[in-house]
Amino acid sequence: MARNLPTGGYPLTTNSDLANERTKATFDPNKITNLFDGSPTATIRRRQLEALIRNDPTNIFCNEDNAYLHRTDRHVRALAKHVRLIELCRSIGIGSKTNGEVVLDEDWTTIVEAVADDLPTYLHWVMFVPNIISLCDEEQQKLWLPMCRDWRMIGCYAQTEVGHGSNVRGLETTATFVKEGSKGEGDIKGGSWIINSPTLTSIKFWPGTLGRTCNHAMVIAKLIDGDGVDRGVHNFLVQTRSLQDHSLMPGVTCGDIGPKIGYNNMDNGFAKFENVVIPRRNMAMRFATVDDDGTYEKKTVSDAASKISYITMMQVRSMIVMGSSKSLRMGTTMAIRYSAVRRQGFKSADSKEENQILDYKQQQHRLFPLLAAAYCFFFNARKVSENLKAIEKRLMNLSDDGATITKTEVGSIHATTSALKSFCTTIAADGIEDCRKACGGHGFLQSSGFPEMITAYLQNPTVEGDNQMLPMQVVKILLKLVKDVQSGKTKDWEKTDAKYLLGPVEAMLNGKEEKSCPAASKDAMMDADVLRAAYQHRAARLLVNVAQQIQNDVAEGKAFEDAWNGALIQMSRVSRAHSAYLLFDNFVSGIQEESGKMIGPNEVIVLNDLALLFGLYWIEKEVGDFLEDGYLNAEQAAWTRACTLIMLDRIRPNAVALVDANDISDFRLKSALGRYDGNVYPAILEASKKDPLNATEPGPGYEKHLKRLIVDGVGVYTGTTSRL
Amino acid sequence: MARNLPTGGYPLTTNSDLANERTKATFDPNKITNLFDGSPTATIRRRQLEALIRNDPTNIFCNEDNAYLHRTDRHVRALAKHVRLIELCRSIGIGSKTNGEVVLDEDWTTIVEAVADDLPTYLHWVMFVPNIISLCDEEQQKLWLPMCRDWRMIGCYAQTEVGHGSNVRGLETTATFVKEGSKGEGDIKGGSWIINSPTLTSIKFWPGTLGRTCNHAMVIAKLIDGDGVDRGVHNFLVQTRSLQDHSLMPGVTCGDIGPKIGYNNMDNGFAKFENVVIPRRNMAMRFATVDDDGTYEKKTVSDAASKISYITMMQVRSMIVMGSSKSLRMGTTMAIRYSAVRRQGFKSADSKEENQILDYKQQQHRLFPLLAAAYCFFFNARKVSENLKAIEKRLMNLSDDGATITKTEVGSIHATTSALKSFCTTIAADGIEDCRKACGGHGFLQSSGFPEMITAYLQNPTVEGDNQMLPMQVVKILLKLVKDVQSGKTKDWEKTDAKYLLGPVEAMLNGKEEKSCPAASKDAMMDADVLRAAYQHRAARLLVNVAQQIQNDVAEGKAFEDAWNGALIQMSRVSRAHSAYLLFDNFVSGIQEESGKMIGPNEVIVLNDLALLFGLYWIEKEVGDFLEDGYLNAEQAAWTRACTLIMLDRIRPNAVALVDANDISDFRLKSALGRYDGNVYPAILEASKKDPLNATEPGPGYEKHLKRLIVDGVGVYTGTTSRL
Repeated sequence: MARNLPTGGYPLTTNSDLANERTKATFDPNKITNLFDGSPTATIRRRQLEALIRNDPTNIFCNEDNAYLHRTDRHVRALAKHVRLIELCRSIGIGSKTNGEVVLDEDWTTIVEAVADDLPTYLHWVMFVPNIISLCDEEQQKLWLPMCRDWRMIGCYAQTEVGHGSNVRGLETTATFVKEGSKGEGDIKGGSWIINSPTLTSIKFWPGTLGRTCNHAMVIAKLIDGDGVDRGVHNFLVQTRSLQDHSLMPGVTCGDIGPKIGYNNMDNGFAKFENVVIPRRNMAMRFATVDDDGTYEKKTVSDAASKISYITMMQVRSMIVMGSSKSLRMGTTMAIRYSAVRRQGFKSADSKEENQILDYKQQQHRLFPLLAAAYCFFFNARKVSENLKAIEKRLMNLSDDGATITKTEVGSIHATTSALKSFCTTIAADGIEDCRKACGGHGFLQSSGFPEMITAYLQNPTVEGDNQMLPMQVVKILLKLVKDVQSGKTKDWEKTDAKYLLGPVEAMLNGKEEKSCPAASKDAMMDADVLRAAYQHRAARLLVNVAQQIQNDVAEGKAFEDAWNGALIQMSRVSRAHSAYLLFDNFVSGIQEESGKMIGPNEVIVLNDLALLFGLYWIEKEVGDFLEDGYLNAEQAAWTRACTLIMLDRIRPNAVALVDANDISDFRLKSALGRYDGNVYPAILEASKKDPLNATEPGPGYEKHLKRLIVDGVGVYTGTTSRL
Repeated sequence: MARNLPTGGYPLTTNSDLANERTKATFDPNKITNLFDGSPTATIRRRQLEALIRNDPTNIFCNEDNAYLHRTDRHVRALAKHVRLIELCRSIGIGSKTNGEVVLDEDWTTIVEAVADDLPTYLHWVMFVPNIISLCDEEQQKLWLPMCRDWRMIGCYAQTEVGHGSNVRGLETTATFVKEGSKGEGDIKGGSWIINSPTLTSIKFWPGTLGRTCNHAMVIAKLIDGDGVDRGVHNFLVQTRSLQDHSLMPGVTCGDIGPKIGYNNMDNGFAKFENVVIPRRNMAMRFATVDDDGTYEKKTVSDAASKISYITMMQVRSMIVMGSSKSLRMGTTMAIRYSAVRRQGFKSADSKEENQILDYKQQQHRLFPLLAAAYCFFFNARKVSENLKAIEKRLMNLSDDGATITKTEVGSIHATTSALKSFCTTIAADGIEDCRKACGGHGFLQSSGFPEMITAYLQNPTVEGDNQMLPMQVVKILLKLVKDVQSGKTKDWEKTDAKYLLGPVEAMLNGKEEKSCPAASKDAMMDADVLRAAYQHRAARLLVNVAQQIQNDVAEGKAFEDAWNGALIQMSRVSRAHSAYLLFDNFVSGIQEESGKMIGPNEVIVLNDLALLFGLYWIEKEVGDFLEDGYLNAEQAAWTRACTLIMLDRIRPNAVALVDANDISDFRLKSALGRYDGNVYPAILEASKKDPLNATEPGPGYEKHLKRLIVDGVGVYTGTTSRL
């Protein structure tokens, strides 16, 4: 047995620095908690569900040994958690309002978050069920959705292949139609599809839930119709495993792709199909059909209906933006609480008292802008999600209003979600890592909670549109705006997020834009309108520059593809500038709209401080964009920095309360550094006791290896040596 | 048994894209390999030692299952590797030129790198042995060094405590002198020390090798002498474990601190001391002594000797800078080779041929500046290390020359190493992660090689001076330069790295600096002298600004501490600007100096391309610093971006050859994406076969958990539910 560390017991009181911080707050954190949850009732419900998980008598949801288990054991236990979770949901009636479908219940997301561990079944409800709902016809839905509801059918979404990512047109998996009565494989009633992975690069790779968990996959494959014509990619429901014993179906080989940098509870999988036969009607047939003769037909559906599935993709991106807020809220909770507890560096040469590290300006400058971003992203994700819901509702009504939704309107919200997804996940990924670094050495510990959170988060800059590719799509749409301004057709843009660009773009194109920032004093820089105008100007200028660069390159004889390629780097600047405007604008207006509803004047003051900090910080950080054409002058740039410092001072007393407002329980935070009670050091030391490397004394490497060196003398220098 | 993935076999040929890239190179990669190694002979020797490890008949050095083992098993196997490594070293005579001390042999670093896995004994040779050599007196060295050489004594360096990091003066561990003949514990001949951890926060925490591996620790503790006077921190050799059976010594509790984000072969440890008795002579006595009466005395040593131990610390930082080059060389090797193999996005709307992703400008803009940085850091680390060796030599000679080494000279090289350590490790940590992201989804795989490399690297921005703290030290020294310029005492600075600041700082202080960039055309921007002048100007301007800001704040009545705190954010800009100048300058001059020696004109051309790209890219990235005071105008800023694009084009054909020049074997690279033969997809698929989650069919979570859901019907909706 290992000798146990005598830590002198665990304090029952809150760390005095942290307690002291809480007395300084000028606002009520509970009100902001309600704002995050959506309502006071929602806060109560969330806490109820969290308690249910935390106090579950099976204790399966305990996360305390997460860092000490082998990956395989983590995966298996996460499956156990999922089964128990469904059992709990059934017992308390989650899903009773949705015909038993728990994953469509509004409590589902809350209770899954309460588990605070990744479930290998995630893709079933995030992609598989929604895909059936949006792409399958009514009869198919009636057949499959009850099986999903009952968890007989567990599905995944199998798109990417080992050699093919976001270029969907490049996918190689094939689904070839075979008529009933044909000889050989695939002769089933009504016709069938033969699914194949014809090449090494066509092996499906990455789909979550595919490896070991699911028994069905929605496979994206090239449809070869009865005439042998390639009709492009479509969706096919392929059973991968037996519902009786989970054995692989004939012709299917699938498994886990191996450990990843993070998110290892999940069995991201591979699948190779060799002449796998599925019925004809397993093709998703809402928007296209193949009849039993193998004749392919695109269904005539309303323009609106086809837009709806497009909206679904954007909703996923807006969820990711909300996720970037949540992750930053977690990261800043850990780092700011720890920075209030941690002391380092004497107050003066003679003093024996050390500073709270939260008092160092550079620590504030590192953490408070991230705190502001976490809040900012919340307001933005909420706004975008509301806008998407509103559009969806108009489309569903199929009223005149729905029909008036223009391509421009859909394009603009596509640009918004793409720009925000790219910017926010980049900031969040870098930001939570910077929170970790801001905790010094202890942030390196698994028990700090950072490593698992960060490594799992790192998928976000890559999935659902790589952050380097999305800016291209943003700019493609915004260049349309420039063109419409040139031809005077700006009406459709007036209803969109991008409308702020119309005025300045037009002025610039006409050579009339000679604007500079009107701030005449340092204090004048601390003004939302001044900052908003700066962001507006910058976005418009960079956009017009890219338009001109491409135009000039083509005029000089470059091929359009080359001109486009040459402008890619600048496009990412445009997309960032567009995001920054939207983020700041929605932050400021979001606070205004909420004022007097869930939050009062005290909360509004501190939220406005955060908004100003956000606005100032990102000008300071990318000041070159504002200086280059003289919009800001050197003095104003210096004022921006000075004002940032002022905002840091203003936020300092509220910093701890602003992270407390997130109301992330210790159970969910899983962080020795971020504990609500601030007993950081006892928690760090207690965690090390659980380390399996300490289970025996001496350690497991001594007897067989180290002893050979220290006792047996393998390492002793004898003076007689041969040479290589 | 799991069904094995039929991958269609493993190609024996090199991927044709990669082969094609290699034909395009305009220079000889072998010459650059020799440059990195130091000489053609060194390349041969390195390859010999790598082959020895790779072909070792015990096969213990095989790294193929690294990602699949539990952390405890990794640690134990790494100990086995260490023992075998020493055995090998003995068998081929490594250490025979250094009296049997393998860790002082020049082959040692090479063979340890050849192992390509982290050894838990690392701190023994990096900190423990050097500490004995530099801080212990001759008699102590004679006693302890042979034990180290023979691996009977395995040591660590125990400084940080759970509540105390870089503020050494804040350490709480005590070493209290007890005279011979005193009653109770500690009554041993010649007097003794009682080592204690008096508080929870004083528990030693983090030292590598301390937890499970070492049997001795060099403990940093407050010395309480015979008169009860606190003499500040000193070093004490404390035996932690028995040499017979590795059991803990009386009063010592130590163990592993638990898993970390990375570097988990290492047993970073904790140690609590409760009245641990060690002999008086276990205090390191080169620079201070305590006699058997308990009388403390500082030894009068030459100024030079005390400077030498200071030099050692700087050498560690220069090693870290070299490490940042090596890590970036690894990261860019993986990402650039993969980007040559990976195809994505059709060449045009009609084309079925996809682009190599390396042809996208944004991918080049992401990777080539990192490639340039990897090369740049190499030249800089080498230069700094040579400078440090030269100073050390002058000090050791104790000649007149040695005596002329001024505080300014030592201070300046301290500023250089601090600034470079901070900048280079930040760029490398972000850069290797960006290389990973540039590989899209597959970079997320452990088999890509990125996750382990990155997570292990992440300690570097924190250790040996946190990257956020070092800039303060840099600026403290450079502010001295400003003061010396003001008082006209610049002679000592003329010999230093910082001499480039003298001219512009003086001009600025006298209000005579009205300089702007002389480039009159785009082509003129592609000039090392033009770029160097820009970096010079920026560093001087930012430095003078900080000096003035602090001066103004104090003049306006702020306390100096507050003025200093308020300037911290700007100090990091100054430090970065100082680094950037040095990096660019040493890169350009390093290439020149090497020309005609190990490299010829073809290599010089391509290295100069890299240097220009480095210079242009970092102006583009931080262009605000150059625009703010009008040094660059808007047109010049645009030229900088245009020139960066030109440099990307120039480097493109040599990109693969430039990473091949690193000559990192597949054994060391451990990357499915970075393989020399480019057979990326087979390698990824082969790796997934090793995943223990695929060992059985169905997976390990089915029988006990998933089956309850799918077969037993735990998840079935029955319509009868109770409510919470």
